[in-house]
Amino acid sequence: MGFSISQAAKQAKVAARQLAKLTSQEKDAALLSVAQQMEANIPSILAANEKDIEAAKTNGLPASMQDRLKLDEARIKAIADAVRDIAAQEDPVGSVAQIKSLPSGIQVGKMRIPLGVIAMIYEARPNVTIDAAALCFKAGNAVILRGGKEALNSNLALAQCLHQALESHGISQDVAVVIPDPDRAIMQELMTLNEEVDLIIPRGGEGLIRYVTEHSRIPVIQHYKGVCHLYIDAKADLSKGLAILDNGKTQRVSVCNSLETLLVHKSVADAFLPNVASLFETKSVKVHACEQALPYFSQSKNTDAVLATEDDWHAEYLALEIAIKVVDDFDAAVHHIQEYGSGHTDVIVTQDYSLANQFTREVNSAVVMVNASSRFSDGGELGLGAEIGISTSKLHAYGPMGAQSLTTEKFVVLGEGQIRQ
Amino acid sequence: MGFSISQAAKQAKVAARQLAKLTSQEKDAALLSVAQQMEANIPSILAANEKDIEAAKTNGLPASMQDRLKLDEARIKAIADAVRDIAAQEDPVGSVAQIKSLPSGIQVGKMRIPLGVIAMIYEARPNVTIDAAALCFKAGNAVILRGGKEALNSNLALAQCLHQALESHGISQDVAVVIPDPDRAIMQELMTLNEEVDLIIPRGGEGLIRYVTEHSRIPVIQHYKGVCHLYIDAKADLSKGLAILDNGKTQRVSVCNSLETLLVHKSVADAFLPNVASLFETKSVKVHACEQALPYFSQSKNTDAVLATEDDWHAEYLALEIAIKVVDDFDAAVHHIQEYGSGHTDVIVTQDYSLANQFTREVNSAVVMVNASSRFSDGGELGLGAEIGISTSKLHAYGPMGAQSLTTEKFVVLGEGQIRQ
Repeated sequence: MGFSISQAAKQAKVAARQLAKLTSQEKDAALLSVAQQMEANIPSILAANEKDIEAAKTNGLPASMQDRLKLDEARIKAIADAVRDIAAQEDPVGSVAQIKSLPSGIQVGKMRIPLGVIAMIYEARPNVTIDAAALCFKAGNAVILRGGKEALNSNLALAQCLHQALESHGISQDVAVVIPDPDRAIMQELMTLNEEVDLIIPRGGEGLIRYVTEHSRIPVIQHYKGVCHLYIDAKADLSKGLAILDNGKTQRVSVCNSLETLLVHKSVADAFLPNVASLFETKSVKVHACEQALPYFSQSKNTDAVLATEDDWHAEYLALEIAIKVVDDFDAAVHHIQEYGSGHTDVIVTQDYSLANQFTREVNSAVVMVNASSRFSDGGELGLGAEIGISTSKLHAYGPMGAQSLTTEKFVVLGEGQIRQ
Repeated sequence: MGFSISQAAKQAKVAARQLAKLTSQEKDAALLSVAQQMEANIPSILAANEKDIEAAKTNGLPASMQDRLKLDEARIKAIADAVRDIAAQEDPVGSVAQIKSLPSGIQVGKMRIPLGVIAMIYEARPNVTIDAAALCFKAGNAVILRGGKEALNSNLALAQCLHQALESHGISQDVAVVIPDPDRAIMQELMTLNEEVDLIIPRGGEGLIRYVTEHSRIPVIQHYKGVCHLYIDAKADLSKGLAILDNGKTQRVSVCNSLETLLVHKSVADAFLPNVASLFETKSVKVHACEQALPYFSQSKNTDAVLATEDDWHAEYLALEIAIKVVDDFDAAVHHIQEYGSGHTDVIVTQDYSLANQFTREVNSAVVMVNASSRFSDGGELGLGAEIGISTSKLHAYGPMGAQSLTTEKFVVLGEGQIRQ
């Protein structure tokens, strides 16, 4: 008697309707119970996680993957606290921004409502299981979770916490389905259930996202990569520019909001690039420079500097490497970003009021910044609270997605018997 | 030397960036010129349309299709006036609703921006060519138009008006591409160009929409059908209910916001259904009734009344036909709508304050109404101005779509050199 994903999705759809009726208080109370259940069940969660870790060692999983898979008491408490933070957020559903009276006499508003059923497909990171379930639940959605098979025992232990908490509040366990079977065929079937599932959010490498995009009949939130640019304008405050460059490139290299390309206005190349060379020498950042920029780095002891190729302008290094280009003017910088950017996050450093305005208007990446580090480009730092993912495609949501991105708006019409003439 | 859709789409993408820079005034001036050009070129538009009409007659196109294909002076002027109305609307792009200051000291807002390039795939209705081009342009998007082949001459004549107007304002003609070749392979290639095209909007029958949804690698706005319900509650004002029923079912039967199913609370069946029987007898509406409702219609001279089958609850008649069911209570009505509705428009008639609230909360169709006719469910009547289509899927847009639905929001971050700690 195997697990039926189509059956689970049907039940999730029914459960989502019940969930949509809960008050904010009822939802938040259930979320607080989830956090409690996690802390009350630390031993059993750790025992399950230990099984996954043992298997990971046996199967020779890379150390970085083992690290993301690993849970300990502190991590479990941190996840529980994140759930409490989600409970404390404002309820994204139910609000009506504005009600207009129209000439016919009807009144029209738009009300925020849940999407329905959301599927998450992700890698072996047990924290995502709870984060995603809590955020979907907050927004009134049922969720179907398909995590990496290497984390299955951990995920099932966490699912028990979820389900116990839901049960204690009289809420159907079907609002949070953790797929108990890592069979790839189940995931493939999930992607065809467009009658039941409203949205799929894949989280992981580019390969996973392309795979889901190509096979899914359900709308997919895409986040391919983050080729983030920093443009140092002719009127830049260069000390701010250097701090933003350092922060963006070296604070944390493996994340999508780190910098990959530096563009420098030719009129400040002499003043700026020698300092960049010193910085990157200290921090051991490998430089791929255009012909104009290269001499600044060859003169330094950074013997790693090389001439950039076309591939470097497309590269998401996710490492201590950067591409550097000297540009003739503002337009050339914008054009480079439009040509090679990934629509994630791009930054200008300038003290010129009009150019700052123009940059924010003309660069249509998901996050456009003036005089601030690209590292601020995540849900928490942008004020969304928890984040379920980042969209680099423009439909539905663009940029970091919080609870509100898991909702939609319907029209509500209030009349007194009006008919159309 | 054939037409290359991939080349046209690449050029449209470049042109869209230029278009995104135009001010509201520049866009509106160009739209007014489009209206002018149409009125100045009535003879050549009519000559081109005449060719299409001749071919339609030769090919034996149904009269209803010929009617939709046909242009005359009045219709051309009406289309031109619709363009002027779009010019007069507020610009949907550029606005920033709210800027928040965050603990790190950065300021964060969301700015409305164009989607980029939008493709329309539609049937032989030349008015859509101009309506869609004007609305996409207003929202700062380039558009690729693929209309039914039966309207090709008309569409090309209208494209000339568009292009002359754009040229006179120094705007690239690439912002509005009318595909000059009806070859199906071109349309199929268009659906694969996800690097260039941000959204596809198919307008036409369910078959067209399913076809595009299955084949497109680009996000698709779906509008399958409108199975709209009217629920007459126990506390309904029955005279309002009868007027809303009459208007919804008989004012215009071939449109998606007409009523297809009537649900009646059992406690008012005796008071309400005899009047419905008289009404539908007068208006020659064929009734498919449940067992409880049928006797009210058998007693009348409406000999057309038959017992409803399961198919009737799913039916979008688009004709003088209706399905009628007596329900035990409010919950049964909501459940029926959730089970059989198409997520388009559903109406309750009630004087009960709490039930009205509950209906608007629990029924998550794109448009939910209290005491008003379903016929108000279109962009004009809901206050959106012109409408590019109606979405019955929840992602990105839900319900009638105006210019704002052709935009997205990006994050704008304003700093003074902040870096992340």
